[in-house]
Amino acid sequence: MSRVYNFSAGPSMLPEEVLKQAQEEMLECGDSGMSVMEMSHRSKAYDAIIKEAERLVRELMNVPDNYKVMFVQGGGSTQFAMVPMNLGVKCKAADYLITGQWAKKAAQEAEKYVKVNKIASSADKTFSYIPKPEADAFSSKDEVDYCYICYNNTIYGTRYTELPKTDAVLVADISSNAMSEVIDVSKFGILFAGAQKNLGPAGVVLVIAREDLIGEPQEGTPTMLTYKIHADNDSLYNTPPTYAIYIFKLVLEWIKSKGGIAEIQKINEAKAKILYDYLDQSKLFKGTVVPEDRSLMNVPFVTGDADLDAKFVKEATAAGLVNLKGHRTVGGMRASIYNAMPVEGVQALVDFMKKFEAENA
Amino acid sequence: MSRVYNFSAGPSMLPEEVLKQAQEEMLECGDSGMSVMEMSHRSKAYDAIIKEAERLVRELMNVPDNYKVMFVQGGGSTQFAMVPMNLGVKCKAADYLITGQWAKKAAQEAEKYVKVNKIASSADKTFSYIPKPEADAFSSKDEVDYCYICYNNTIYGTRYTELPKTDAVLVADISSNAMSEVIDVSKFGILFAGAQKNLGPAGVVLVIAREDLIGEPQEGTPTMLTYKIHADNDSLYNTPPTYAIYIFKLVLEWIKSKGGIAEIQKINEAKAKILYDYLDQSKLFKGTVVPEDRSLMNVPFVTGDADLDAKFVKEATAAGLVNLKGHRTVGGMRASIYNAMPVEGVQALVDFMKKFEAENA
Repeated sequence: MSRVYNFSAGPSMLPEEVLKQAQEEMLECGDSGMSVMEMSHRSKAYDAIIKEAERLVRELMNVPDNYKVMFVQGGGSTQFAMVPMNLGVKCKAADYLITGQWAKKAAQEAEKYVKVNKIASSADKTFSYIPKPEADAFSSKDEVDYCYICYNNTIYGTRYTELPKTDAVLVADISSNAMSEVIDVSKFGILFAGAQKNLGPAGVVLVIAREDLIGEPQEGTPTMLTYKIHADNDSLYNTPPTYAIYIFKLVLEWIKSKGGIAEIQKINEAKAKILYDYLDQSKLFKGTVVPEDRSLMNVPFVTGDADLDAKFVKEATAAGLVNLKGHRTVGGMRASIYNAMPVEGVQALVDFMKKFEAENA
Repeated sequence: MSRVYNFSAGPSMLPEEVLKQAQEEMLECGDSGMSVMEMSHRSKAYDAIIKEAERLVRELMNVPDNYKVMFVQGGGSTQFAMVPMNLGVKCKAADYLITGQWAKKAAQEAEKYVKVNKIASSADKTFSYIPKPEADAFSSKDEVDYCYICYNNTIYGTRYTELPKTDAVLVADISSNAMSEVIDVSKFGILFAGAQKNLGPAGVVLVIAREDLIGEPQEGTPTMLTYKIHADNDSLYNTPPTYAIYIFKLVLEWIKSKGGIAEIQKINEAKAKILYDYLDQSKLFKGTVVPEDRSLMNVPFVTGDADLDAKFVKEATAAGLVNLKGHRTVGGMRASIYNAMPVEGVQALVDFMKKFEAENA
């Protein structure tokens, strides 16, 4: 057996160092005499883990003091409801930018709780670009409680390189680019990320929220969907997903060992460049996204021939390059190259693509 | 280093065999070339895991075909909202039996969504017994959507030995006794259990729901809090807590290897008997629960002297018997002896109690 290069869009690769440490500590962590999975969430041993996870998030992302850091459950999909239920209290309205399936789902869910203004959409070109409306296209901060974006679009491979020209509170789903590039937290009201792409295993969501925004939610909001409850209880209102948070902490330590997010970003830019540079000169493969909006994390590409795409995916899998099949709405291939994908993995993919191109030209 | 006997109320001990298998498969599971944590939830490899987990739940608990089995997130606390939001649609009313803190919290949360009738409470005697109202004390099935119980009360160490005399749909929180004793699923509308006591790690909740009960929920129910969404999508509407479900599956395999729930129940009865028999004749320690309602899983006991209790907990910890401190509302000690606690652990505890009694009589 040997480990493959896993290009899955999520859950996805974790750093081998993290898995090895988790393996080593599986039956006994430190001098606790037990697995982290067996620790009471109220124990001193576990408290040290969750506190250190929060501290590392604050350090690595340079989180200002007036922001709360929370670990919650339910995936990004639960955030689609939590954001409007908790923030949509004054104007009961919000702006949404529709840049793909996840932004669309977020807007649909929000319509249960607030008036949703769809300011722009890139649906006309299969979400292959980021729409950039002028400032006057947005509602004013007196008309909406927030403006919502999906910062990096996992399925379509686009990302914002500059933020929307709104003066409203900005909320961003950063599930697929959290800690892959430097993000200025102070520009946002809420940031959230399902862990299973860049941060850890599925089952925990990182939420960073400006304190003044998370007061009383809409009436009828479940206690467990109330930001203030989790913030006031340091994510220990009820039993949190203890083991997922532990792995998350190991990933944070790994990021720190690499020099922090700015250094990780350089590596990610280098990895993405290897792939995009090849795509830009290939006669067989082409990227599906306009160059200026390309994601560093998710790289969709096609040959234009569905049979050839299928052949590529099959042969790549046999070569240990797995989960390259694209999302059904884009077709072709998608390489997700999150933090834990080593540069060697991207190079191996490009080498394989070159070989495939030579054989199938 | 060596593993301790962990009497934590949850998260709590897992079978050593399960941890060892998880350890072995941490970097590569089967021939996948990756950790289960890294598997796409849409992959064939992961599909086999989640399907087998569901199949084993059905087999072990003898779940009738007209029930859905779901794995969801958010802990029992999220179920406190999901139950009334999903079931409270016709009468918008429900009966609750208040047998402890968790039943009380469930009732409080339900009051946001339905009229709550508190049929009985054992608060008058610190929840040290199960109230047993006559049939006419309950609402009729035409007046309420369901009747709610907490089957085993983790904090207070009580459990139902016969079900309430209601003709309404019965809903039970079985977080602390799921798969520890035979439960006739067909007698219930909804059963749910946070995994972190008897079933696996924190971060996944098992829900078993009678299909006809989970249609359209109350207006404003978040998509992720809608039973029907999870049921219709085989718990794969969004990314489930993949690794927690994998460990859960290993625990199910372990239960099966022990001969199934009926055999596990015999072992649990024998374990509990060792402890209760000792308590019943001890001059120093006494149990806090009326004998007929004693839990097989959670055994609170006191010396009646807070300083002596503290001394006991401290010395027990030093002897490798950990997390014995009782809940602050009961005081004293509590030994949680879930499925994964071996009989040797209970015997070691009783031996230690005997020694402590001799030294402190």
